[in-house]
Amino acid sequence: MPNATISDVARLAGVSTSSVSNLLNGRSQRMRASTRDRIQEVIDRLGYTPNQAARQLKTGHSSMIGLIVPSVANPFFGIFARHVEEAALEHGYQVLLGNSNRDPEREYRYAEELWRSGVRSIIFGTSLGQYQHLSELIDRGMNIVAFDQSEAPGTTTPIDCIGVDNVQASRLLTKHIIALGHRRIGFISGPIVTVSRKDRLLGYRQSLEEAKLVFDPTLIWEGVSENFGDTSSIKLGRLGAHELLCLPEPPTAIITINDMYAFGVYAGARDLGIGIPDGVSVAGIDNISLSEIVVPPLTTIQQPIREIARLAVERLVARIEGQRDIPPEHRLLPPELIVRESTAPPKTKH
Amino acid sequence: MPNATISDVARLAGVSTSSVSNLLNGRSQRMRASTRDRIQEVIDRLGYTPNQAARQLKTGHSSMIGLIVPSVANPFFGIFARHVEEAALEHGYQVLLGNSNRDPEREYRYAEELWRSGVRSIIFGTSLGQYQHLSELIDRGMNIVAFDQSEAPGTTTPIDCIGVDNVQASRLLTKHIIALGHRRIGFISGPIVTVSRKDRLLGYRQSLEEAKLVFDPTLIWEGVSENFGDTSSIKLGRLGAHELLCLPEPPTAIITINDMYAFGVYAGARDLGIGIPDGVSVAGIDNISLSEIVVPPLTTIQQPIREIARLAVERLVARIEGQRDIPPEHRLLPPELIVRESTAPPKTKH
Repeated sequence: MPNATISDVARLAGVSTSSVSNLLNGRSQRMRASTRDRIQEVIDRLGYTPNQAARQLKTGHSSMIGLIVPSVANPFFGIFARHVEEAALEHGYQVLLGNSNRDPEREYRYAEELWRSGVRSIIFGTSLGQYQHLSELIDRGMNIVAFDQSEAPGTTTPIDCIGVDNVQASRLLTKHIIALGHRRIGFISGPIVTVSRKDRLLGYRQSLEEAKLVFDPTLIWEGVSENFGDTSSIKLGRLGAHELLCLPEPPTAIITINDMYAFGVYAGARDLGIGIPDGVSVAGIDNISLSEIVVPPLTTIQQPIREIARLAVERLVARIEGQRDIPPEHRLLPPELIVRESTAPPKTKH
Repeated sequence: MPNATISDVARLAGVSTSSVSNLLNGRSQRMRASTRDRIQEVIDRLGYTPNQAARQLKTGHSSMIGLIVPSVANPFFGIFARHVEEAALEHGYQVLLGNSNRDPEREYRYAEELWRSGVRSIIFGTSLGQYQHLSELIDRGMNIVAFDQSEAPGTTTPIDCIGVDNVQASRLLTKHIIALGHRRIGFISGPIVTVSRKDRLLGYRQSLEEAKLVFDPTLIWEGVSENFGDTSSIKLGRLGAHELLCLPEPPTAIITINDMYAFGVYAGARDLGIGIPDGVSVAGIDNISLSEIVVPPLTTIQQPIREIARLAVERLVARIEGQRDIPPEHRLLPPELIVRESTAPPKTKH
């Protein structure tokens, strides 16, 4: 079986691909000796080789997958990167990560450098709404999976898109907050330039409309620029909170574009002596680990990032390992609402 | 001037290299027209070309720098990566990032893949205390800079080491806490396997000794394993807090190996109904952006990471661009104590 894959080994040994990967990567200390022996026996029988140089000789390309995200200074993308890496390692691939700052020019330069280094597959953790700047690379044979819905309507670059349903994510949040009795709900974001951010704003507007609440543009606070450093989102969230909470008729709840912005709102509300949730309810999106630790713990949205990472890697591996012509897939996975203590009924009703 | 560098352009145009880089990368919107024209004029006059393909043809290697860190799920390494990237871009290099989980085998595999892709320089954001597993790559010509002190005493792999003085970092914290009147001071960490962690424990012990306080090993809590995911440090910090704070004679202050562990201690203390700093003082290391946002804001240590990143990149660029034989440098930069509200005098004296 000269083309045996890690999945073949796992199936015949009756174990998960992770177990095979663990054995191959010397992480078998906690494995039962009998399991270890069984996996090794199948590996030997099939002549399975995870050897990367051998694969590269065979396939002509490297065993690396590129991953380009806006900025790992946002822990969400750090965690997404870990999930991508975990899935990739199970298939014998390594992951190289770059930060694009949501700049198409930087995306392109990273992609071009990766191509030149022999990398033939990239996951984009961004959603700039168009991939025309990469079409030449795609024509040459680069495999691309986009995290998040990929493109603005009407564009048709043939790439796989696997992500969360961002419209649904903010619908879940907004409906939860409306159900608590809020009528004036703020929305704080950085520049709304990506498909995912546009979708989040859309979900908010849809939910207001369904509840027959008037959309008030003064409650939408959009930061003008981000520097993608570690403090940018927090600073913008804080500034947005200052401005919205000082309006003549301030919101009683604020939805933020992600958890880091929500933490900024926490600081901004504290600056003004406004308690959460007594003075204002706050909700984020991402469920990064710290959202459970802050006081009060943050109501937020869990994205199925582990599954998204896994599907994205499987898609790329399928293309790299021969199925170049499977049609591009667009797949949006459902988000999950996590209600914690930062959202509560408003103290004063409008 | 066929070998003009970005520094030449900056010097002759009387601007910073960042400004030149901004212009070259299409980020000149906010630049004065006169500045933009002056830089362009110098570029044209010198015939300076940042073209990466041209450089690669000339030098025979790629314009990428590898960066290997334990895990970007810790925001500290996400931020460090951003600083490395910023410095690298100014020199016309891009950064590819990998997570090693502090596993020498994974470090080696990343380094080997990077070599195969034409990358000739790597920054290691780890400090496993030995680089013998990389010596063959170094012999072949890989340039390596280690973040943090590099090696256990007695080993001599010839690499550059640029980092923070970790002994001094925990000395600053411990002395601050002793000065507040604490006598029983806990220390919470994950596996103390790296030089940086050993140094932090050493600084703690040295400070106790200088203050003539008895070192009590029951106050050292060392987690047995980390999974390098996003919740691992927080979980270990929380568990450590539960155990130390339930001792018959609990500590009145706890120092943690980094801020993420400190956030875990916040959660652990809250689980037990113990206030910070009233019931227990807490201090971390790293000063990640959220340390200012948590309640109470966290006393911690600021590492000069921007400067470390800059020096590391400059060192590599010097070696890549010809100065292969400059002797390896070991340089430790001073940490800075940031006192916030999580540390205060103990309520009950022992």
